[in-house]
Amino acid sequence: MTQLDRDLELAAACTEHGFDLSAPLQIGGSYTSLVRDGRTLYLSGQIPRIGDHVAVVGVVGAEVSLDRAKRAAAIAMLRALTILRHELGSLERLKGVLRLTVYVHCTADFTQHSEVADGASDLLWRVLGAAGTHTRTSVGVLQLPKNAAVELDLIAAEAES
Amino acid sequence: MTQLDRDLELAAACTEHGFDLSAPLQIGGSYTSLVRDGRTLYLSGQIPRIGDHVAVVGVVGAEVSLDRAKRAAAIAMLRALTILRHELGSLERLKGVLRLTVYVHCTADFTQHSEVADGASDLLWRVLGAAGTHTRTSVGVLQLPKNAAVELDLIAAEAES
Amino acid sequence: MTQLDRDLELAAACTEHGFDLSAPLQIGGSYTSLVRDGRTLYLSGQIPRIGDHVAVVGVVGAEVSLDRAKRAAAIAMLRALTILRHELGSLERLKGVLRLTVYVHCTADFTQHSEVADGASDLLWRVLGAAGTHTRTSVGVLQLPKNAAVELDLIAAEAES
Repeated sequence: MTQLDRDLELAAACTEHGFDLSAPLQIGGSYTSLVRDGRTLYLSGQIPRIGDHVAVVGVVGAEVSLDRAKRAAAIAMLRALTILRHELGSLERLKGVLRLTVYVHCTADFTQHSEVADGASDLLWRVLGAAGTHTRTSVGVLQLPKNAAVELDLIAAEAES
Repeated sequence: MTQLDRDLELAAACTEHGFDLSAPLQIGGSYTSLVRDGRTLYLSGQIPRIGDHVAVVGVVGAEVSLDRAKRAAAIAMLRALTILRHELGSLERLKGVLRLTVYVHCTADFTQHSEVADGASDLLWRVLGAAGTHTRTSVGVLQLPKNAAVELDLIAAEAES
Repeated sequence: MTQLDRDLELAAACTEHGFDLSAPLQIGGSYTSLVRDGRTLYLSGQIPRIGDHVAVVGVVGAEVSLDRAKRAAAIAMLRALTILRHELGSLERLKGVLRLTVYVHCTADFTQHSEVADGASDLLWRVLGAAGTHTRTSVGVLQLPKNAAVELDLIAAEAES
């Protein structure tokens, strides 16, 4: 895999989801989107925001279908990958994602949280290839900021130079 | 404490809970159960699955009693310890658990999340002895994958050789 | 910023919130409040406990206002900073907070989780100044231990000596 591949794949996925890779990421509240500690990269919670608009809002299992929830997870992951690419210059500098947590804003009887989270995990595999391996936790929560359908955060590692 | 102790204690606890230590762990979704970064070990969220069956499902505080919820937390921790033992060869190679997060699928008025999480913490102490020290967060969530009563994840550290 | 500033600022914030910096922190359950791995410091979930009393209980968006919820987040952060100060001797030894997770016990239609979490983040900035930079995730959950309105946990880093 050459250096171009991952970044081109991210750009292609962004285009498919109507996500503008070059637009500034809107960040709410008094915190930052990424903190680095050595080669460990901590990312803030990402909702499926495109520009200043949350693309998928509402309750998964009620007004939000499984398919739209997976798309919400994918868009939130695009934001995370965009932040990582900005920090590292290129996703080729990413060793991998250590921990992914996916919060699904769902009904009390919705139990397909893993399937929703696959929307984010599948994108990781698509963009990172074999380095897409990661650990994951998915849970169903009562609400999320801005009524978002999905929120995710992650811890990643920079490649050793 | 000799090398045998921790691993024997895990085996004993598995037997008590009807958990087959040697069976392959069923993993759902497109992720892996453990990722290592140096000596830091990240584990995916574990539900109280025994084989292909989730042993404790439903809402804690309603159809699931506190005692069964503690057992659910213990079984999920058996899975986590089994994964760590597989990675390290023996639990004697485990320095300790740095962070444990316990998600309890509960009613809106259930407030004994700490008591549920003790089911997992007590098992850590039993198997690891003094190395069972860990930090912990427990919260009450609306739902969990497969309608599980409890889910937990953790970050652990390998002993320095 | 001299060594005195951060610790004095913490003391001032404690006084404002009626939080006794010198009182022992009540810890529930079979775990510990901080685990260190090298320079990385993992803290257990903190609720807005003052002494043996949880200062803000109930559902945010119903009986708990946004302002009281922000105060709950601030008190929980005071506990976290007190634990860090105890470990490090002085907060001047703190490099920063890598990851903050804020769980808000809220109604199904409350969506201002970020605003609640600002109660904790703003306190970090006040006490740590430029080192207050951190990543953050906030979610809305069904319940929390002891019916607390807010719970938070964090991962921090010690300054390199």
